[in-house]
Amino acid sequence: MVSNTNKNKKIAQNKPKLSYCPGLEGIICSRSSIGYIDGEKALLEYRGTDIKELAKYSTFEECAYLLLYSHLPSEREFSQFKTLLTKSRHLSTPIREAVTRFPVGMHPMIALQTATSLFQGEDYYADDVSSSTHNMRRAISLIARLPTVLAAFDRHRNGEEPIPPRTQYSHAENLLYMLTGTAPNPEQTRIFDKCLILHLEHTMNASTFATRVIGSTQASIYSSASGAIGALSGSLHGGANERVIRMLYSIGHPDVVENFVEEKIDSQSKIMGIGHRIYKIKDPRATILQSFIPDLLYTIPGEEVKTLYKIALKLEEVVNKKLAHKHLYPNVDFYSGIVYECLEIPSDLFTSLFAIARIVGWAAHWLEQIHANRIFRPTQQYIGDHNRPYVSMEDR
Amino acid sequence: MVSNTNKNKKIAQNKPKLSYCPGLEGIICSRSSIGYIDGEKALLEYRGTDIKELAKYSTFEECAYLLLYSHLPSEREFSQFKTLLTKSRHLSTPIREAVTRFPVGMHPMIALQTATSLFQGEDYYADDVSSSTHNMRRAISLIARLPTVLAAFDRHRNGEEPIPPRTQYSHAENLLYMLTGTAPNPEQTRIFDKCLILHLEHTMNASTFATRVIGSTQASIYSSASGAIGALSGSLHGGANERVIRMLYSIGHPDVVENFVEEKIDSQSKIMGIGHRIYKIKDPRATILQSFIPDLLYTIPGEEVKTLYKIALKLEEVVNKKLAHKHLYPNVDFYSGIVYECLEIPSDLFTSLFAIARIVGWAAHWLEQIHANRIFRPTQQYIGDHNRPYVSMEDR
Repeated sequence: MVSNTNKNKKIAQNKPKLSYCPGLEGIICSRSSIGYIDGEKALLEYRGTDIKELAKYSTFEECAYLLLYSHLPSEREFSQFKTLLTKSRHLSTPIREAVTRFPVGMHPMIALQTATSLFQGEDYYADDVSSSTHNMRRAISLIARLPTVLAAFDRHRNGEEPIPPRTQYSHAENLLYMLTGTAPNPEQTRIFDKCLILHLEHTMNASTFATRVIGSTQASIYSSASGAIGALSGSLHGGANERVIRMLYSIGHPDVVENFVEEKIDSQSKIMGIGHRIYKIKDPRATILQSFIPDLLYTIPGEEVKTLYKIALKLEEVVNKKLAHKHLYPNVDFYSGIVYECLEIPSDLFTSLFAIARIVGWAAHWLEQIHANRIFRPTQQYIGDHNRPYVSMEDR
Repeated sequence: MVSNTNKNKKIAQNKPKLSYCPGLEGIICSRSSIGYIDGEKALLEYRGTDIKELAKYSTFEECAYLLLYSHLPSEREFSQFKTLLTKSRHLSTPIREAVTRFPVGMHPMIALQTATSLFQGEDYYADDVSSSTHNMRRAISLIARLPTVLAAFDRHRNGEEPIPPRTQYSHAENLLYMLTGTAPNPEQTRIFDKCLILHLEHTMNASTFATRVIGSTQASIYSSASGAIGALSGSLHGGANERVIRMLYSIGHPDVVENFVEEKIDSQSKIMGIGHRIYKIKDPRATILQSFIPDLLYTIPGEEVKTLYKIALKLEEVVNKKLAHKHLYPNVDFYSGIVYECLEIPSDLFTSLFAIARIVGWAAHWLEQIHANRIFRPTQQYIGDHNRPYVSMEDR
């Protein structure tokens, strides 16, 4: 106390007096070496490596290792890491039973949030964050278990028994397998694995920030990630890919896209999946996701998703024509929904797929926060009254 | 999108380039009319009214109304509010059963966090935050149910059946009653009620900030409060009152206090419950809490807690003598633990009692955030590498 409090006071005195910063825009809250975005160049790097290369050559497991340990693994390191993931994927009986008792109408994101909180009940010393080794183990076991929770909950709400993970399957394969019970198609798995890679990390958004704020009190990774899942569940954050799909269905036909965009411009309202705070040109993740769709469309029957894709292409074309001067281009959510539709994943799981990937970034940020910590305690501008006396009930 | 994105860009361009702000100290993240602290005067106001008056004349229920609605209730308003609290106190059968299946070794704070997340499973439209009426209803029902969860979990871990709340009891009475099953002593209830009042709100600490960050994505009050409970569970935030008690027990006798403080000063280490970021003189809540102790000491048998109190008084005296020039005085946690010891509450519930009170402040901040929202998206300073090419496994 003696040292800390004085140090804090000195820092406070040296700070310039600032005005209210809505949403903390432009305020640097953390130093980080995890992800990097150059919005002008449409560049996203994980630990300094371009995601275009990672999406081409790497896997979920390898990128997760890279983000957590900040280097690509040697063969031995990678084998140990994968073994740890494999061993950690199973849910304990109490957790599996708890998940299969969740109300069937619960949103899958809330199932993930609740289960993440429950995990701490089985890890009594999780609030001791002093050991880097234990912190990393917890991060890995949390990453490993979220798909198992999601699949168990999805099957439960459909009246089906959970399917345990299989040792021989990768992270991506296991999720697809545990959802359906059938061996996943290799091409679908390959693309789903790349979808996960593209969603692992994206610097300081609201959920990552929530992870760091909660973690800064030295709360466990479970409490921090549970809060982050909560933040991602908010309609202004995750969930945009689900709403893109709903929007495309509601447009219905490529011929009416131009009218749809005109109306949105006239009413100054948002077009889902278009525009991004940081990217001034097309989101690199959108470009990669879009490249998967033509091949995937051949794997599914019917015309429905093919029409969706045509509408999406037309929408991008019209937006390019009419809104390029405003730097409005498709973002990651614009095409990910269509990819998931091709993989026949129910649309109310889309945000949860985001969470299952982003848990890696959250874990990396939690580890980084714990390692060089200062508790988050911003200040507020008080805009209320003062000196209001207490008036007794009779005199009110 | 058209309007929002451009507005954001303009704001960003007008912002001065700032340096890294560790813990966001001194940064104004929100405008608020809920609580106000003047650290020089040891003043804490709820909606403009001094807590010294509120602790003297008011009740938990009335202060909760004041914080949520920003005025003291009329007789009719208060009656409706209390009825709503009473009706909302019961847990649904699935929630009660879930709580009584939590692992008995789970920390009570994690039980609160998990149950808060579970509540959303029974409130399907909780992620629609557009109705102020529904938002307020949810806030009230959450405030009402947390003590029921805590007591049910505490009894479960002790192998006892949960006790349902009683209609005729107040919030404070119900918690004491549901923990023990016996009608609470009126003097103990009166003081416990005041303890709750003193913990309701304290401006922008890490848990309140977590509530606002998560809520800013338009996540539900359940997700936001669940994250806040997680933040409060961190060892740098809640839990100090529990550690004060452990420290006082470890000191053991008033005669060794002077040595204890000397050693702490020499090793520049923290004395639990001493010093506060904002208060430059004694925390007004500590003064009030301390005033309860002499009377309470007569209600309990044995010398143990009396000795603790003597040690605490001596510690304050020595700290005043040796550390007053550093503005180090007892904070709220210094005496609250002794009060709870007098009320015979197990020390691992202390942080949860804090949460059960602070949920009111969190709810008020969540409502305020939702009402004038901007999503929290600060930025980061990237300190890692760039242009690290992907190297295949064989070449690493």
